[in-house]
Amino acid sequence: MSILIKNATVVTQNATREIIDNCDILITNNKIESIGKNLKTENGKPETIIDATGKIAMPGLINSHTHVAMTLLRGLGEDLPLQEWLEKKIWPAEAKLTGKDVYNGTMLGICEMLRSGVTCFNDMYLVGVDEIAKACIETGIRGSLSDAAIATIGHKLDRAIAFAKKWKGKNSLVTPHISCHSIYACPEDMLIKAKESADKEKLKFHMHISETRKEIFDCLEKTKKYPIDYLDNIGLLDENTILAHAGWVTKREIALAGKKKATIVNCPISNLKLATGGICQITEFDQQGANVCLGTDGAASNNSLNMFETMKMSSLLQKHHYWKADVLPTQRILDFATINGAKALGINAGSIEKGKLADIILLDGKAANMLPRNDLISNIVYAAGPQNVTDVIINGKIVMRERVIQTVDEEKIVDSFRQI
Amino acid sequence: MSILIKNATVVTQNATREIIDNCDILITNNKIESIGKNLKTENGKPETIIDATGKIAMPGLINSHTHVAMTLLRGLGEDLPLQEWLEKKIWPAEAKLTGKDVYNGTMLGICEMLRSGVTCFNDMYLVGVDEIAKACIETGIRGSLSDAAIATIGHKLDRAIAFAKKWKGKNSLVTPHISCHSIYACPEDMLIKAKESADKEKLKFHMHISETRKEIFDCLEKTKKYPIDYLDNIGLLDENTILAHAGWVTKREIALAGKKKATIVNCPISNLKLATGGICQITEFDQQGANVCLGTDGAASNNSLNMFETMKMSSLLQKHHYWKADVLPTQRILDFATINGAKALGINAGSIEKGKLADIILLDGKAANMLPRNDLISNIVYAAGPQNVTDVIINGKIVMRERVIQTVDEEKIVDSFRQI
Repeated sequence: MSILIKNATVVTQNATREIIDNCDILITNNKIESIGKNLKTENGKPETIIDATGKIAMPGLINSHTHVAMTLLRGLGEDLPLQEWLEKKIWPAEAKLTGKDVYNGTMLGICEMLRSGVTCFNDMYLVGVDEIAKACIETGIRGSLSDAAIATIGHKLDRAIAFAKKWKGKNSLVTPHISCHSIYACPEDMLIKAKESADKEKLKFHMHISETRKEIFDCLEKTKKYPIDYLDNIGLLDENTILAHAGWVTKREIALAGKKKATIVNCPISNLKLATGGICQITEFDQQGANVCLGTDGAASNNSLNMFETMKMSSLLQKHHYWKADVLPTQRILDFATINGAKALGINAGSIEKGKLADIILLDGKAANMLPRNDLISNIVYAAGPQNVTDVIINGKIVMRERVIQTVDEEKIVDSFRQI
Repeated sequence: MSILIKNATVVTQNATREIIDNCDILITNNKIESIGKNLKTENGKPETIIDATGKIAMPGLINSHTHVAMTLLRGLGEDLPLQEWLEKKIWPAEAKLTGKDVYNGTMLGICEMLRSGVTCFNDMYLVGVDEIAKACIETGIRGSLSDAAIATIGHKLDRAIAFAKKWKGKNSLVTPHISCHSIYACPEDMLIKAKESADKEKLKFHMHISETRKEIFDCLEKTKKYPIDYLDNIGLLDENTILAHAGWVTKREIALAGKKKATIVNCPISNLKLATGGICQITEFDQQGANVCLGTDGAASNNSLNMFETMKMSSLLQKHHYWKADVLPTQRILDFATINGAKALGINAGSIEKGKLADIILLDGKAANMLPRNDLISNIVYAAGPQNVTDVIINGKIVMRERVIQTVDEEKIVDSFRQI
């Protein structure tokens, strides 16, 4: 299998952040074989040629923290206070979810993500996670998946570990990891054992941290330490740990996360929607050496899975938080959503370079909202949206072509939701 | 001319905020003639029938503060501090703009706005405003336009008044108004005379207010009053006055703007991008009786003209600012972007009701990001985007049909920008 993308403007995201006009990309099997001008074609090879004249080719966006099946709960209980929303709407609805529901919600969420240029997502869920894996394979999207250990509702660590072992090395699109919900939902021995298991299996470890202010007080009361200090103290903080939210942190915790090269996933839209108050200080996390990534969180608290929107908001909120228009370079935002995401999840992707996995999206560079081209990176981060995504290639396979999903029948998927 | 939209889900925005499924809308000439189920068709009447099965029909979005031609400057000077950005990039570029440039930038911006469901925009600019009017007429979008008086750069009030008189009653799509740039750029006598002229001509008066913190200090020093107090003191504060930004205001000013029923236009994305620090407290302005509207501001400081994004951000920032997830009902956000916008600009639109101007957009309700329908208003405010806008009708004319702009050659417009 080989694909030649011809004549694109290529945003490589390579070490020098090169942008190359009128450039071809040759994909062989699931990897990028070469990048350059006027790559040769010979009789029947490559099998597929995509004319990308006027298009922008860039690495697919990586949604580094979500709960994809929560599309099912999109818009449920709007305009309720947070606690009432959780207790009266979200938790009762989640308690009733079947594997079939999770499969349907995941298929819907994946269609939405593909249309917004997401080629890989990092998920944490509590029911039907095998169905999420199945949906990834069927649709052709890359998933980093976990069945979260949550002691407070009886979700045991054994199950989380069993899921990870079952899916390890099984399918090139599915990379399992081990997750614990949070410090407040998991006792110390569970956290320690989860991380030890992840290390033993050479898998990533993923959890929520410091999302609300209350968590900080509770953690201080329970452990006498701030959350990130605590994680470090019990051996959980390293480059294989993915921490989502981190909206309420001390400067010392930021420095510590940086020193240990942990991944911090900023989920600004969810934080604002749930009014958690804290702003994840990604500028400082980045400066201190943490691996900053971006996530939409679930559609119940976003209410979309649009990573372009998350890039823009991530940037704007830093400017707002520091009252400083030039606090964080625009290029870094794109890095967070591509190369840093790949690094966090241990996936050989995130840039368009020889030898990398062929996870590539094409944007329509001729759309009114993408012109003029005073600054292409700024256009991608601040002006682009799902309306500009035309093609999606994942693992060397064309998953969306000229805005039509190729792998599954999207109409059938959405129709099932219109009848609910 | 008559158009029948058949079988839509109609978000009426009428007094009871009714949503009607499987509903038809009959448009005759430029107005809505009737709304109801199974409206009759007779031989050849209406001339055009739009099958809107699976679509959502809603009032077009009203962008209540922008500088449309600034699409020309999109992405110019990113990552510079505010003052350097203005002085080294924006002002020198603007000083060189010709009428032809403004026309081109406006055509581009209008294409972008149509694609994001905007049927009317309120503009303030300083050069080539006749060209902006021409672009509105050619594309078929509704424009509320002004040639701003700006004493600091020699833009006289006479010119602003002459523009307004010239275009008053001339074309049903173009409604002129009178604008002064700001308190800091216009002396008191200019402000007073501008408002008197607007009142005499029965036109709206439009200006920037309290966008940066510095303006407050400068106004206090110059007038001994806070900006909105000052406007009231010199007779500028009433229901025909449109104030953009208002990010730095006292509770007393909020109450005063409410009492006088002034229009306040929230431009959250521009405020964040320029790191002005203040959050326009639209929740309180609304509660106190001001007419709250939403605007994108220009594309140089946004960098898009996407009103869906502005609706979402307007809501999220209130939740964040007050640390309260239920501070402002989602429905109010949609009101701000539709009926309140029409009220501000003195246009008989903003809702789908008999006798209203036919400014209507259709959204694809079968898109993955618009499902499930737990809450349709929430889906529109938080999940929808330009990718969902399929059709745009303005003043009874089909301006976009199935994502193709009908009135002008969009490809030609965008191509001219690719060659710059």
